[in-house]
Amino acid sequence: MTTPQLYCFAQSGNAYKAALMLALTDTAWTPVFVDFFKGETRTPEYRRNVNEMGEVPVFVDDSVKLSQTGVILTYLAEQSGKFGAKSEAERREILRWILFDNHKFTSYLATYRFMHAFANSDDTAVMDFFRARIKSALGIVEKHLERQPFIVGDAPTIADLSMCGYLYYPAEEFGFDIAAAHPAIGAWLGRIKALPGWKHPYKLMPGHPLAS
Amino acid sequence: MTTPQLYCFAQSGNAYKAALMLALTDTAWTPVFVDFFKGETRTPEYRRNVNEMGEVPVFVDDSVKLSQTGVILTYLAEQSGKFGAKSEAERREILRWILFDNHKFTSYLATYRFMHAFANSDDTAVMDFFRARIKSALGIVEKHLERQPFIVGDAPTIADLSMCGYLYYPAEEFGFDIAAAHPAIGAWLGRIKALPGWKHPYKLMPGHPLAS
Repeated sequence: MTTPQLYCFAQSGNAYKAALMLALTDTAWTPVFVDFFKGETRTPEYRRNVNEMGEVPVFVDDSVKLSQTGVILTYLAEQSGKFGAKSEAERREILRWILFDNHKFTSYLATYRFMHAFANSDDTAVMDFFRARIKSALGIVEKHLERQPFIVGDAPTIADLSMCGYLYYPAEEFGFDIAAAHPAIGAWLGRIKALPGWKHPYKLMPGHPLAS
Repeated sequence: MTTPQLYCFAQSGNAYKAALMLALTDTAWTPVFVDFFKGETRTPEYRRNVNEMGEVPVFVDDSVKLSQTGVILTYLAEQSGKFGAKSEAERREILRWILFDNHKFTSYLATYRFMHAFANSDDTAVMDFFRARIKSALGIVEKHLERQPFIVGDAPTIADLSMCGYLYYPAEEFGFDIAAAHPAIGAWLGRIKALPGWKHPYKLMPGHPLAS
């Protein structure tokens, strides 16, 4: 039996969702560094051999090759018996928030951070557009977390691991402090951070000066 | 037993995904018109009573109240035994494309169309930004459909119904003809349109002058 591999790089909050799940379930894994900033995910080779969607993460073990964090998280929850659903209703609720995350939470946050921190974009119209969308999405999540400690039910699930994916990166990378401005989200991030095995993305994945 | 209800409006391609699934599975249902263009989904009442995420569609029947099209489509596939997965691998592959759709396909297409057709936006920087993202996403799907007739396997699934959600609206609403510029996508849309029970979104949901 070989160790599962995760195609990833330190700055990818999407890859972090899968890496964090592996850490929290104490699963041995090997990172495969993807040089995103040099365009690796856009090459024909990557799209042909690794992922036709041109994205990280990709998770590979003996029997499967998976992409899309929602698929990887669901698979690892089923394999490990941890952070998954305890009922059909909970399974639907977890999927509901993972879809919301993909459409309106991670999606807008990741794009905005990329433009602010890595693309040195001065395209203020696009930044303003995303800032308004982020504000709306954060408001929905803040209100939700004022009522309950985790996204679904009273224990952490893969819905939490999906939605927190970008929120441990330094505030400077966004240009604003999300946790400070949203107390319920801040407290929730603290609860996830307290789980045994939690690690910061820059300590968990390769490709950043802070990576160990 | 009451007829299931779908909160929807004609111009919502997301609602159309669920409405089309109901039509193709020959399921009786009642539309509940949501006056999106007058701001209904943004009201505190809608968020409290219908959907905290402030979105359509919402599907309600005797035992469940569901939002997010990926959840509704999965539920209806399980209930009807149609357009679902035939194996675990197929189930993961369907979810993979539904997530891609939510993140990068419907997401960008719907936003762009909204700005072009309904918001009369002249924000060319934002429009340009989304046009580039749409081009990339359409390229990935076109290449995928050059190799196979449907998104997953050789028969239509809910992954197809998710991804086609916005693509039957008139080309003028986008300002460009997606099917004409992408032959494999055009042929795929033709295959879905040929399924028994198919109806155009403006014929299937209320709130448009063309609605019957």
